Amino acid sequence: MAICCCYYTPANFRIPQSTQVSSADPRLRCNLSLPSRTPISLAEPDPICTSVKAFAPATVANLGPGFDFLGCAVDGLGDTVSISVDSKVHPGEISISNISGDNAKKLRKDPLWNCAGIAAIEVMKMLGIRSVGLSLSLEKGLPLGSGLGSSAASAAAAAVAVNGIFGNKLGVEELVLASLKSEEKVSGYHADNVAPAIMGGFVLIRSYEPLDLIPLKFPSEKDLFFVLVCPDFEAPTKKMRAALPTEIAMPHHVWNCSQAGALVASVLQGDLVGLGKALSSDKIVEPKRAPLIPGMEAVKKAALEAGAFGCTISGAGPTAVAVTDNEERGKEIGKHMVEAFFREGNLKACANVKQLDRVGARLINSTKH
Amino acid sequence: MAICCCYYTPANFRIPQSTQVSSADPRLRCNLSLPSRTPISLAEPDPICTSVKAFAPATVANLGPGFDFLGCAVDGLGDTVSISVDSKVHPGEISISNISGDNAKKLRKDPLWNCAGIAAIEVMKMLGIRSVGLSLSLEKGLPLGSGLGSSAASAAAAAVAVNGIFGNKLGVEELVLASLKSEEKVSGYHADNVAPAIMGGFVLIRSYEPLDLIPLKFPSEKDLFFVLVCPDFEAPTKKMRAALPTEIAMPHHVWNCSQAGALVASVLQGDLVGLGKALSSDKIVEPKRAPLIPGMEAVKKAALEAGAFGCTISGAGPTAVAVTDNEERGKEIGKHMVEAFFREGNLKACANVKQLDRVGARLINSTKH
Repeated sequence: MAICCCYYTPANFRIPQSTQVSSADPRLRCNLSLPSRTPISLAEPDPICTSVKAFAPATVANLGPGFDFLGCAVDGLGDTVSISVDSKVHPGEISISNISGDNAKKLRKDPLWNCAGIAAIEVMKMLGIRSVGLSLSLEKGLPLGSGLGSSAASAAAAAVAVNGIFGNKLGVEELVLASLKSEEKVSGYHADNVAPAIMGGFVLIRSYEPLDLIPLKFPSEKDLFFVLVCPDFEAPTKKMRAALPTEIAMPHHVWNCSQAGALVASVLQGDLVGLGKALSSDKIVEPKRAPLIPGMEAVKKAALEAGAFGCTISGAGPTAVAVTDNEERGKEIGKHMVEAFFREGNLKACANVKQLDRVGARLINSTKH
Repeated sequence: MAICCCYYTPANFRIPQSTQVSSADPRLRCNLSLPSRTPISLAEPDPICTSVKAFAPATVANLGPGFDFLGCAVDGLGDTVSISVDSKVHPGEISISNISGDNAKKLRKDPLWNCAGIAAIEVMKMLGIRSVGLSLSLEKGLPLGSGLGSSAASAAAAAVAVNGIFGNKLGVEELVLASLKSEEKVSGYHADNVAPAIMGGFVLIRSYEPLDLIPLKFPSEKDLFFVLVCPDFEAPTKKMRAALPTEIAMPHHVWNCSQAGALVASVLQGDLVGLGKALSSDKIVEPKRAPLIPGMEAVKKAALEAGAFGCTISGAGPTAVAVTDNEERGKEIGKHMVEAFFREGNLKACANVKQLDRVGARLINSTKH
């Protein structure tokens, strides 16, 4: 197969000084843009199976004071992407053969304008795939624009699937970078959905240049349930972002910073009461966004009164997210939240109670040669 | 002895709703202001010894992005307070008999205008001491206005000493509240020095109303050394506070918030590299304060070049603090920092390499009846 050539350079990856080499060194030129943890391989990899299927979970970004740098994955909701080697597709290219799910018609099949397509193409570029054509099929399990990381789940599933069919040559960071290319196109260069969608659990995005991700391990012996209540209401990310203040008063900055610290400590210490308290404590973003989602303030109140440890807006909304340690109590909390959306916001809503996803995007099926 | 009467109400302690009672309930009226974890005792306690001596450590507040809500204690530097039952002092009052140390002359002996005196009086009020007079002696081990929590150490040592002589009836929160009264008078109502001075280790101040403190345990098996370089320069807290911006741009807010989260995660995970990186990452406070301390930017650069994991201003300065995992390396780093203060700031400075104090203020001596 062909030798990989240096036609991919992720814009947001800084080359560590120690690995910088002069352009006269042909051995490393091809791989300069890839992090050192990636196995250096100059050869284009062969597919190790004819088809694979990957699932990526829904994600809750922001988590109150974790605005724009913290997110976590939620099990049991998500998108599924199947990838097949397809001799009818031009080598080095990808074609979207099918999109299924309630919102299938709203999504484009042009891979350059589809989240799964963009991430898949990026992974192919990173791997230097030029000899094989791929066909992609997307099962859209998540509603669009709901605040549950719908675009990130499509991108993450596609990135993991393409990586999987070629033998998992890329590491987590590359998959996040590939998925970020997709996020950049649809909602902005933020990794607080794609990072947990790929890595599972809670992930703190420390920086982008270089990409620096900190997984925050929630203790395995503890239960954590998310009550996700999604109203029948559109809250476009752009509008929700435009509602944010451009300047923050120092006391609010200090407050939110301390709550962000408390949130991180609560996750690592498995302190659900503390986690809930931190989740509910945002004084900067939630107060601006909640009024744009009819009934949200009442929904939060209803969740807390029903025994939730905390409640806030998931991502840019309109989904409301509450946390609890018990599935049955979660259902009861969800019922009250749905009622509040209807009573105060005149909105129909549906509730899901889901556990923390500790795994992230994964291959769920593969067919060998 | 006399029955405690309700003449003390800490201004910043909110009474939990569940414990609120009508003023007709005489049983609880006396203790309304004390947190529920305090053993309820209506009787004024007797002294259990004739004299005690307590030590409280120096503290590093702010820690870069932990501005105004995070601090930690540093072993081997601090203030010492001795308290004796003194029949010559009016019952229920305290007298400062002696202040020793390099800066003794700069401190007032009027207990209402001395950090140790103010905290001691607060603890006496909390305990309802009206039948015993006390004498206080302060050994001032810390330089004044250095950014090492000098006032907090005096207050913490005094609070712990008075509590100790009466049998340790008060809990940590009450001691922090008592010491906060002192901080309020000298530098503002901030607990990021007094809380770690009393509790040891790293402490996150989550809120003041109610007071909510989160101890962050740095793993016991790991070493953490602070290189504290104190230049011969005055940086008054008020001036350093006046230099701060009143409004923060959203991108800087998000950046510092994420670094604060990373700082907390690094402490709990014992990740020294991450801790150092977070310490050095502040984009809001340090850039405004560093230019007011001659040579500070060069000192930070020198620390990092000498192998420190991170470096920033300790508290409001002028002390520079760097972190490392090795005492010998710490001394080498300190040497380079001292040189940089002299070369770039024309300031003499002295370096100390000290470990994290995991204990906090403690009784070090007591004389029984």
